[in-house]
Amino acid sequence: MTHSYSREKPDLLARLRRIEGQIRGVQKMLDEDRYCIDVLTQLSAIKQATHAVALSVLQAHTRGCVASAIRDEYSEEDKITELMEVIRQFTK
Amino acid sequence: MTHSYSREKPDLLARLRRIEGQIRGVQKMLDEDRYCIDVLTQLSAIKQATHAVALSVLQAHTRGCVASAIRDEYSEEDKITELMEVIRQFTK
Amino acid sequence: MTHSYSREKPDLLARLRRIEGQIRGVQKMLDEDRYCIDVLTQLSAIKQATHAVALSVLQAHTRGCVASAIRDEYSEEDKITELMEVIRQFTK
Amino acid sequence: MTHSYSREKPDLLARLRRIEGQIRGVQKMLDEDRYCIDVLTQLSAIKQATHAVALSVLQAHTRGCVASAIRDEYSEEDKITELMEVIRQFTK
Repeated sequence: MTHSYSREKPDLLARLRRIEGQIRGVQKMLDEDRYCIDVLTQLSAIKQATHAVALSVLQAHTRGCVASAIRDEYSEEDKITELMEVIRQFTK
Repeated sequence: MTHSYSREKPDLLARLRRIEGQIRGVQKMLDEDRYCIDVLTQLSAIKQATHAVALSVLQAHTRGCVASAIRDEYSEEDKITELMEVIRQFTK
Repeated sequence: MTHSYSREKPDLLARLRRIEGQIRGVQKMLDEDRYCIDVLTQLSAIKQATHAVALSVLQAHTRGCVASAIRDEYSEEDKITELMEVIRQFTK
Repeated sequence: MTHSYSREKPDLLARLRRIEGQIRGVQKMLDEDRYCIDVLTQLSAIKQATHAVALSVLQAHTRGCVASAIRDEYSEEDKITELMEVIRQFTK
């Protein structure tokens, strides 16, 4: 089965690989006893990059799965409840 | 030179390796066309784990570098400005 | 014209009046030179209450305006773009 | 007793009065059945303004109470724990 994000998949994977590299970079920074504030700036960048990936998946999901559910009047309520739940998670 | 987080370093490194594994897990989820909401839940967990690591570094930094600067009356203003700047970054 | 939130309006108004009271409460706390941490705890509660009101409006909007736009195939793209934009604002 | 924010008090009170006005503005928007997205944009502005006030109080508190506690070696640990707890609240 394919999902709403299939068109964005190569881009999303490239961004996740970059985040993986950034996480390894922070491990190296700690190993080298780098200054706390520099470590924190890097961790903040990772959080923001992860959030940006999530927003892309969320957008694909809304345009795809949620819109289909509404159009087909199939499990529409469930899809919207699920969407709101995930938005709640990301804005906490 | 050692930094404020030297005591927590093994724990911080272990947590970063776990986050690295989670990031690879999300790449696998996309490869396997897993459901958007499951991908989003995983990305939210990564954001929260990254934030928790940052709070640990921030706590070590405040107890260590910032407290020293205040005690030694050396670049105290700079340290507090820097601290507030990084808090601003994390709460944006 | 009525909007998606018309059913929730009395509840939303009651919650906003309570937030207004909390904001006045913080002004009183500052006037009385109350302890910073207590002021901050109160401001954090206000932020969370405001966010909860926003999530209720967002949910009503998604169930109402966005679902209609998708069902009627009318300005669907615009509605979803607008929705994502507002989610981005709230998760920043 | 005076607190760390005494110098900023007039500015903080002015900003809180403005936020109070914005909250009343949102009530009026709901009464007039204004468009959800406009209501949400306004609620987002309120959250950000409240957060900005909190950061000012936090900065005054760190420069004042926390720095004194460290300098006087009096309840230093407690002050830093309390500070971290409030930062955790604001970054949740």
